[in-house]
Formats: sequence, C-alpha cells, structure tokens
Amino acid sequence: EKKQEKTFCGLTEFVGTGRGDTIGLVIANVDPSVHEAMGLDKKYRSIGIIGDRTGAGPQIMAADEAVKATNTEILKVELARDTKGGAGHGCLIIFGAEDVADARRAVEVALKELDRTFGDVYGNEAGHIELQYTARASYACEKAFNAPIGKSFGLVVGAPAAIGVVLADTVVKAANVDVIGYSSPAQGTSFSNEVILTFSGDSGAVRQALIAAREVGIKLLGTLGSQPVSDTVPYI
Amino acid sequence: EKKQEKTFCGLTEFVGTGRGDTIGLVIANVDPSVHEAMGLDKKYRSIGIIGDRTGAGPQIMAADEAVKATNTEILKVELARDTKGGAGHGCLIIFGAEDVADARRAVEVALKELDRTFGDVYGNEAGHIELQYTARASYACEKAFNAPIGKSFGLVVGAPAAIGVVLADTVVKAANVDVIGYSSPAQGTSFSNEVILTFSGDSGAVRQALIAAREVGIKLLGTLGSQPVSDTVPYI
Amino acid sequence: EKKQEKTFCGLTEFVGTGRGDTIGLVIANVDPSVHEAMGLDKKYRSIGIIGDRTGAGPQIMAADEAVKATNTEILKVELARDTKGGAGHGCLIIFGAEDVADARRAVEVALKELDRTFGDVYGNEAGHIELQYTARASYACEKAFNAPIGKSFGLVVGAPAAIGVVLADTVVKAANVDVIGYSSPAQGTSFSNEVILTFSGDSGAVRQALIAAREVGIKLLGTLGSQPVSDTVPYI
Repeated sequence: EKKQEKTFCGLTEFVGTGRGDTIGLVIANVDPSVHEAMGLDKKYRSIGIIGDRTGAGPQIMAADEAVKATNTEILKVELARDTKGGAGHGCLIIFGAEDVADARRAVEVALKELDRTFGDVYGNEAGHIELQYTARASYACEKAFNAPIGKSFGLVVGAPAAIGVVLADTVVKAANVDVIGYSSPAQGTSFSNEVILTFSGDSGAVRQALIAAREVGIKLLGTLGSQPVSDTVPYI
Repeated sequence: EKKQEKTFCGLTEFVGTGRGDTIGLVIANVDPSVHEAMGLDKKYRSIGIIGDRTGAGPQIMAADEAVKATNTEILKVELARDTKGGAGHGCLIIFGAEDVADARRAVEVALKELDRTFGDVYGNEAGHIELQYTARASYACEKAFNAPIGKSFGLVVGAPAAIGVVLADTVVKAANVDVIGYSSPAQGTSFSNEVILTFSGDSGAVRQALIAAREVGIKLLGTLGSQPVSDTVPYI
Repeated sequence: EKKQEKTFCGLTEFVGTGRGDTIGLVIANVDPSVHEAMGLDKKYRSIGIIGDRTGAGPQIMAADEAVKATNTEILKVELARDTKGGAGHGCLIIFGAEDVADARRAVEVALKELDRTFGDVYGNEAGHIELQYTARASYACEKAFNAPIGKSFGLVVGAPAAIGVVLADTVVKAANVDVIGYSSPAQGTSFSNEVILTFSGDSGAVRQALIAAREVGIKLLGTLGSQPVSDTVPYI
C-alpha cells in the first residue's frame, strides 16, 4: 500500500521516487515566467527534475548515466545543505529537453541508477564516507565537478570533514591521478561538514585510489561510532 | 508547570514564546556598541526580536501583521539554515522602535499571529510545503521578499526543492499572477533544500494560485512518505 | 570494547577522538598536490587535523591552548553548518608543523582540552548557549575571531539567534569590554541559527560579562524547553 503511494500520485508531473528521499519529476511545458525566473535556456521547453534530501554524489552520478542514455542536457546542479541532520548535501538537478519524453526518460534512468550509486556510501551515527567512480564522465560530472568529458573520474567524500582531508591525501598517494578539485566546509561546499576530492586519470588508477581511500575511510569513521555500512551493494 | 515556564522567566527582555521554537524578546535601550555592531539605525533606541528554529515564512508573515498594527519598522530579516534537521530555515527578525512599548507590542502581535501563519505548512518525514497569503503586503514582506507594499502577495515553498519547482510552475499556470522572485538551494536561500516562488497580483488570483499549488504539493510530498499534514488550521 | 575501538584503528594518521564527535588526525608528509589544492604554505610538511560534528567554539578554544603549548601554527579554521540537526556549527581546524611530532602533539593537547572547553555549553531540545573565556588569546582565537593576541578574550553564543542578541547586549552592559565582532545567521556564520559576540578587555571584566550572559542565557533558553544543562563541568 505504501509502495503504491510511492509510485502513483495522479499527477502527470510525477515520475517516481528513489533512495535518499529522491523524487523524480517532469514539466512538459515550463511556463515562460518560471523559465525566466529559473534562468533556463529558452530552447528547453521541457525539464526533468531530480531532487532529494540525502545525497548529492549518488544523484549526480545517476544523472550522468541518464545524460549519456538520453537526448537531454544538464541545466543545473544545485547543492542544499541537508541530509536530514546529517553532515552532507541534498541536491536539485534539472535536465533540459526539447521533448517531454526525453526529459521523462532521463529522470527514469537516473532513478534506476540510484541503488547502484548509493553503493559506496558508508555511514554510521557520526558521519559518512562516499566514493564514486565512472569509467567515462559525462555532462553531469562536468557541470557539477568540472570533470573532463569522456575520461575516467572519481570522487571521495569524508564527513566529518577532517576524515576527508586524510582521504584526499590517501587518494593521491595510492595511484597516479590528477586532482580536479578540493572542497571543504568554507570553500566549495554548501557549508557541509565534508572534504571532497575530485580527480581523473586512467581507469585503473582511479579505481585503485578509490579502493585505498575506502579502506582508510571506513577505519577512521569507525573510530567515532559503529562500523560504517553501505545500505546497498558496493559497486567499486 | 511547563506552560508557566514558557510564559515567565523573570527577565524584562522576555516577551513570550510560540510555535516553531519561536521566542519573542525586547531590548528597551540597546547598548551603543551592540547597536553599531548590528548595523542598526541610531534612531531606534528599542528593538523587538522574533527568532525561531523552525520556519521563516510563518514568522515573516506574522511580523508583517505586527508592523501594520504598531509603530515599528522592520530592521532586519535574516534566515538561518535550520528547522532542526528539516529542509528549511529558521529566522531572526528585528523590529525597531523609538519607544520600548511599541517594540514589545510588535513582538506580542507577531507571536499571536503564528498559529494562523503556520496554518498552511504541511509536513511529513520527507519534507514540507508551505503557502502564505496576505491581501495587503506590508514592510516585513517587502524587506524579506521585495513584495510591493499594499498589494496582495503570495508565496509557495516546496521541500525537497524539486517539489518547489513544480509548485512554481503550477502557480503561474493556475492564475494571472506576477512573479517577484524564485529562490533555490544555491541561489537566494541559505542553502536550504527548498524552491520558493513569491508573487503578487489581485487577491483572487493570488489565492487561486495558492490553492492550486497546495493541492499539487500535498500529492507530490506524499509520494515520499506519509500524508502531509498541517499542525494547526489552514487559513488560505 | 567500544572504548578500544575509539582509541585505535591501525592507521598512523589516527590520533584520537573527543567530545562532540571530534576526531584528531595527522598527516606526516602531505602530498604536494593536496598541499596545493588546500592552499597551504609549503613550509608545513606535516599537518594536524581537528574536525567535529558538534561545536566550533570548544574546538577553537582547545586549539588555542594547543598552539600555545606546541611548535605549530593554525593554518585554517573552517566552520560547517552542522551540530547534527542542532542550531550551530561543526568545524575543521588545520595545524601546520615542520615536524610530524609537533603536529601530533598539538592534536593531542587539543583533544584533551575539549572536556574543559565544552564546560560552558548549555543545551536543551530547543537550542544552546555557549560561553568561552581565555586569559590570554593565542593564534587560534586570532585566526577564527580576530582576537588580539595575548589579551583576555571572551565569546558568547545564543541559539536560536534571538537569544544571542540579548546575550550580546547583556555582555556589554555588564562590564567594560571591547566588542570585536558580532555574527548572525546571514552575516559571519555559516547560516547557523546563532548570534555570536566576541570581545576582549581585562580579565575580570571579560569574566564578569560572561557570567552575566550565562545567567540570562540559561533563563531565556529555558523558556523554550527544559532547563539547559552542561554535559561536562563549567570552567568560567
């Protein structure tokens, strides 16, 4: 019964829901005054919307797959300070399309990807660590993280932020990767309690760096509470 | 006993408390060094203070009524990222007055209005939607939202922010209203997980738009959890 | 068993944990690419790291003692919007050292100071007040608060922010102190729901001001819920 409630609400704008209090929506024909207020390019009559309370990395990586698979563009990636009292972000992602079917398809693909992209988020009562990987970054990773299109890309997050500093150092010592960006509570995050390192390199090096950081991150976060666990299945 | 605790604390600065962990305070004669540090106009010897953990809209709308009813000015409206782990704001509102009795009266009026102005806040475990309406906007709505003084004014909030995007579109399609502003996690909010649309128009149109958005918002938020409910009595 | 988990994790980077989900870490030899991404001065090969979910004042005051006691510098103090759903900050503090033993020692001293520096944090379900005092401010207080080095320094925090406004006024009326800064949700905090006043003066005046503010703050916060209490032992 609850399940039914979550997959149908009688509105054409509703597409579906996913992990992390994620909701997927679509507007077939955005009203011109809203279009202008949002600062969107006029050529995108239709938009797809992914928004959530918990997580930005998982939704951005999911949107990256959606963009690869559909005829859409990433118009906006905005990060709220959220996670429902946790240390991180929630987010709002806007896909643009000329046709509503494309926008809807992008949202559907992104929602389906979430179970996978939450795979390497490990949390406990004190915080979380997150690792993300793609063999070939696309437009969502470029928009959100300045990732070079078509290259292998990785990111590590540690929260509280202190843990992220050590993860950042672990990444670059573990393999030959190029740092793209370093974000911290006062610089580049929405005042989240995270340090985030983004990087690219060849596929093997990016994965090796992530695996090294994951091992360290789980140990460090564990000192502040119980053993950090993933709610789904690790993919890296 | 708890009730008594909440209405008396032995300090002349204390006025009262209200919904949303709202506290009402007054300073009869602000110390010059604090006056300067706060950046207040020197002519306001006395200030009234409304602050809370949960909500900005309800307190701003309540302050708007207080300004209409008293000889005070709105000096500041500041929005914290709060709601005690929720998706929205808390706030801090400063009234200025030449006489402490006026400042106190403004705070009393604002506290009394809160039960009404929380009327169209609907929440569940995943987020909230909020609708506010006034037939005649005054200085608090102007300060906080650039609302034209004396005109009918409305605002809709959706959290997570994705829901607010659809509510914004619903508002402008439902009635002939003028968009004043659009705020989102990275632009115009304090990184809250909300999209907020503010608008004016004739009274009937503003109300019609709000009623349409309320219907949509309750349905969409309900897909992420239980049926969204108001803790008090809807007024729109 | 839990205790053991918190004092050992098998990584050389781990130093220890403390109150407020605080973790203490050290990197002996920061990788050059991370060094550059963090914007650190090259001369500090080693860094000490203090990070936490709950509190900025206690950790900064603890770091201030650590800097006095060791051959280190404060490179960064960053404030996240955190406290695990509470109204305040978490933080990230970076010590720089030429020798890893110095960095480690600074982190150890800071962790040990935390029980004391949490002494005058009083919380209840609605918010918190915090008071901090040092007879002689050092580089952490200078970096975070522009405190004059070597002088007596105090700070008061009230959350929700409305309470902090009254505490600020109480401080300057209670004793002859010099205001250094006033921070509020929209100005100088990371959108926390706090008003923070920082001030200096002679030692007796600073303490007198803090004691006056503490009395007022506990009464005001108590109107919003239960009697505010310290989790440890007051030191002022």
